[in-house]
Amino acid sequence: MSVKIALLGCGTVGTAVATMLQEQNGDFAERAGDTLELIGIAVRDLDAPRDPAIDRSLLTDDVDGLMAGADIVIELIGGIEPARTHVLNAIRGGATVVTGNKALLAAHGPEIYEAAAEADVDVYYEAAVAGAVPVVYGLRESLAGDRVESVLGIVNGTTNFILDEMETAGLSFDEALKKAQDLGFAEADPTADVDGHDAAAKIAILASLAFHTRVSIEDVPTTGIRAITAEDIAAAKRDGYAIKLLAIARRRDAGIELSVEPTLVPHDHPLAAVRGSFNSVVIEASGAGRLMFYGRGAGGAPTASAVLSDVVAGASHRVHGGRAPRELTYADLPILAREDSIASYRIDFAVEDRTGVLTRLSGAFADSGVSIAAVRQMQEEGGARLTVTTHEARTADVDAALAAITSADYVKEVLQVMRVEGS
Amino acid sequence: MSVKIALLGCGTVGTAVATMLQEQNGDFAERAGDTLELIGIAVRDLDAPRDPAIDRSLLTDDVDGLMAGADIVIELIGGIEPARTHVLNAIRGGATVVTGNKALLAAHGPEIYEAAAEADVDVYYEAAVAGAVPVVYGLRESLAGDRVESVLGIVNGTTNFILDEMETAGLSFDEALKKAQDLGFAEADPTADVDGHDAAAKIAILASLAFHTRVSIEDVPTTGIRAITAEDIAAAKRDGYAIKLLAIARRRDAGIELSVEPTLVPHDHPLAAVRGSFNSVVIEASGAGRLMFYGRGAGGAPTASAVLSDVVAGASHRVHGGRAPRELTYADLPILAREDSIASYRIDFAVEDRTGVLTRLSGAFADSGVSIAAVRQMQEEGGARLTVTTHEARTADVDAALAAITSADYVKEVLQVMRVEGS
Repeated sequence: MSVKIALLGCGTVGTAVATMLQEQNGDFAERAGDTLELIGIAVRDLDAPRDPAIDRSLLTDDVDGLMAGADIVIELIGGIEPARTHVLNAIRGGATVVTGNKALLAAHGPEIYEAAAEADVDVYYEAAVAGAVPVVYGLRESLAGDRVESVLGIVNGTTNFILDEMETAGLSFDEALKKAQDLGFAEADPTADVDGHDAAAKIAILASLAFHTRVSIEDVPTTGIRAITAEDIAAAKRDGYAIKLLAIARRRDAGIELSVEPTLVPHDHPLAAVRGSFNSVVIEASGAGRLMFYGRGAGGAPTASAVLSDVVAGASHRVHGGRAPRELTYADLPILAREDSIASYRIDFAVEDRTGVLTRLSGAFADSGVSIAAVRQMQEEGGARLTVTTHEARTADVDAALAAITSADYVKEVLQVMRVEGS
Repeated sequence: MSVKIALLGCGTVGTAVATMLQEQNGDFAERAGDTLELIGIAVRDLDAPRDPAIDRSLLTDDVDGLMAGADIVIELIGGIEPARTHVLNAIRGGATVVTGNKALLAAHGPEIYEAAAEADVDVYYEAAVAGAVPVVYGLRESLAGDRVESVLGIVNGTTNFILDEMETAGLSFDEALKKAQDLGFAEADPTADVDGHDAAAKIAILASLAFHTRVSIEDVPTTGIRAITAEDIAAAKRDGYAIKLLAIARRRDAGIELSVEPTLVPHDHPLAAVRGSFNSVVIEASGAGRLMFYGRGAGGAPTASAVLSDVVAGASHRVHGGRAPRELTYADLPILAREDSIASYRIDFAVEDRTGVLTRLSGAFADSGVSIAAVRQMQEEGGARLTVTTHEARTADVDAALAAITSADYVKEVLQVMRVEGS
C-alpha cells in the first residue's frame, strides 16, 4: 500500500514538489504513516523541455486517467479553467485536493468547499497564500481558540520588491518593475501583481478563514501601486513612514472591512521592515494579541514546502483517519463597502497662499465629522502645500470633506490621498 | 452531548482559559463541531480568592473524580509533580490532554507520549513553548513537508525584557531584573528564567519536533544571563550586535547541536529587533528558507489562546475522528556535546602592550585549527585589549586555543567569550 499522488502542472513549483517528494520520501512516509507515491504528472506538452530531475515516464496528458488512480491530487496549473474542472472532478472522485491556486479559491471557493463537504474529502491550500508562510494553518488551526480582530499582510512579493527598490535605490516605478522582471520576481504581464488583484485574492481567502464568513475577491476594494512615485516614497520616508501595498481585513462593529491599497506604515510597525520579495502577515487576536508570520511568499521550493506539508497532512488523514478543518461560514458577518470602512488618511493639498485657508479647510473636515490629527504647511513656488492627517474616520465622510474642499476656490488640487495605519 | 472539559489549575492562565471558554463558546462549538462544557476546575485551595469571572461552583479539590468525567483534561498546574501523575492518569483514562507544562515535557516527554500512543489519545502542548506564538503547530504540521535545518529562538520573555532594558535604558542586570519583577515579567525566584533553564526546556521540545529525535533538557548546554553587564551590551551595540539569550537547535552533519547562551546577534538579523518580553522563533528549512514567528510568549490571555486552539483541535478530533500528529523519533539523530558544536566566537583578551602579541595569539588559534575572521586592538591603561572574532569552528578547538593562550605570559586575562550568530 502507498498513498498515490497525482500532480497537475509541472512548472517551477510542480518541479520542486516532484523533486522534494523524491528526495525526502523517507521522511514523509514516517510523518504520514505510509509511502507517498507520485503516480504521474499531468502536463499540456509532453515534449516540452523539463528539469532533468523530472522522471519523464511520469508525464501524461490524460488528466482524468491520472486522477482516477490517485488518493491525493495536487493542482498547480493556476488560473480558473481547466483548474476548476479538474479540482471538482478530483473531489467528486473522492481524492484529497491540495492546491496553490489563490485565483480559483478567491473566485470559486464556495463551490469547491461545498463539493468537498458533499464528497467528504479534504481541500488544502496553504500554498495559495504567502507561499511558505504558514498563515492558513495559523488561521485555520492555531487561532481556532481565539477571536481574530484583524489581518494585515504584505502578501505580494512582487509589489513589495518594487516598492522596496523605489525606497532603497530611488528607482522609478517603471525602473523597479523592469528590475523585478529581469530578476524573475515579476511576470511579463505584471497586471495581477501591480494592480493588486493577487493580493486581493489572498486577503479574501484569509478573511474567510479569520472571520468564518464567505469573502470573495469582488468584496475587496483594490488599488494597485502604479501611481506611486519615488517622490511619494521619499516624502513618506521623511515623515517616518514606508509605503506598502497592505492587504487588510478587519473586524468592525458593523462588519468586515477589506482593503488592498498603498498604505503609509509607520517605521516602528513590524510590516514597515519587510524587505524585498518577502511576505509577512500580522494578525491581531483578542487573546493572543499581535502575532507576526514572516517568510518567502513565492518561488519554487518555498511554495513546494507549503504544498508538501498539506500533502503530508492529507496523506496522514487517509492513513489514520481524520479530516482537515472544513470551511466555516457560521459567523456570516456583513461585508462593509469601501465608504463604510474606517481609516486614517493623509491628504496633500496644493492651496492658495493666503490667510484663512487652514481655517476653511479644517472647517470642511469638521463639517463632515472628520477630526484632524495633524496639519503641516510648507511654502512652495506659487502657493503652499498643506498636509492633513485625519484621525480614524468613516471613508465616506472623508470623501465628503474632500468633495467640499475641491469645489472651494482656495484649494488648487488634491495631490494625494493615502491610508495610514497605526503602529 | 457536549465535549466535557476538566481544567487543572486556576492561576493566571487557567482563569483566562475559563473566561475565554465562557465568552466564546458559541464560536468554539462551531469550530469543534460540538459545545465545549467546562465541567470543573481542580484547585488546591477551594477558599482562595478568585477572579469574579470564575464560577466557584466549578471548583473542586478532587482531581481524579473530576478527570473521570472528562473528554479533555487541561493541565495548567506546572512543575513536575503532581502534574505528571495527573497527566498520566488522564491519558490512561482515555482523555485528550492539553498542557502548557514545558518543564514536564522536557523532562518526561517520552513517558507521556508513549502512554498517549498506548491509550490512543492526543497530547497537545502549543502553550508550552512561546505562548501564543504557534511554533509547535509550525514544526508539527506546517513544516511536515520540509526538512528543518535550524531553529533559533528568543523563547524566554523575562530574559529578553531584562537584556532589552539593559540595552535601551542602560540598566544593570540587577536593576533590570528588579524592574521585570516589579512589572510582573519575572518571578520572585527568577532562577528558571535568568539561568536559562526555561529556554532549555523549550528548545528541547522544539528540537524534538524539528528533528524527529528525542531531546531532553539535559541535552542542552545552558548558560544564563547573570554575568552580562551593561558595558558588555553597550560594547556589543557599538560593534553592531545585540546580546540575546538565544536558544539554538541546528542540524549538523554529525548530529544535532543545541545551545542556550547569551549570543551576539547582528543588528540586521530579525531576532536582534525583538523587544521587551516578546518571543520570536526563526526556523530555516531546506525548502521554505527562513520563516519567522513573532508574538507574546507569556501572559494569561496569550497562553490561554494557545491552550484553547489545542482544545478546539482535540475536541474536533473527538467529534469528527482523527488524531493529532504523534511523537516521531524515527530520525534518532546523535546529539552533539557542547565541544562538538560549531560556532563563531568573539573573544576579548587583556594583553601585554608589546610587539609580537598578535602574532603569537593568532598562531595559537591556528595551531588549534581555528581560523580568525577579524581582530581589533585597543590601547587601554596598563596594556591593550584585543578582540578576536573567529570563523565557524569546533567549540573544542576554540577551547584548546584558549587554554594554550591563557597559559602564555603575553595574555593577562580572557575577559569574555561569546557566541556570534551570522545574519
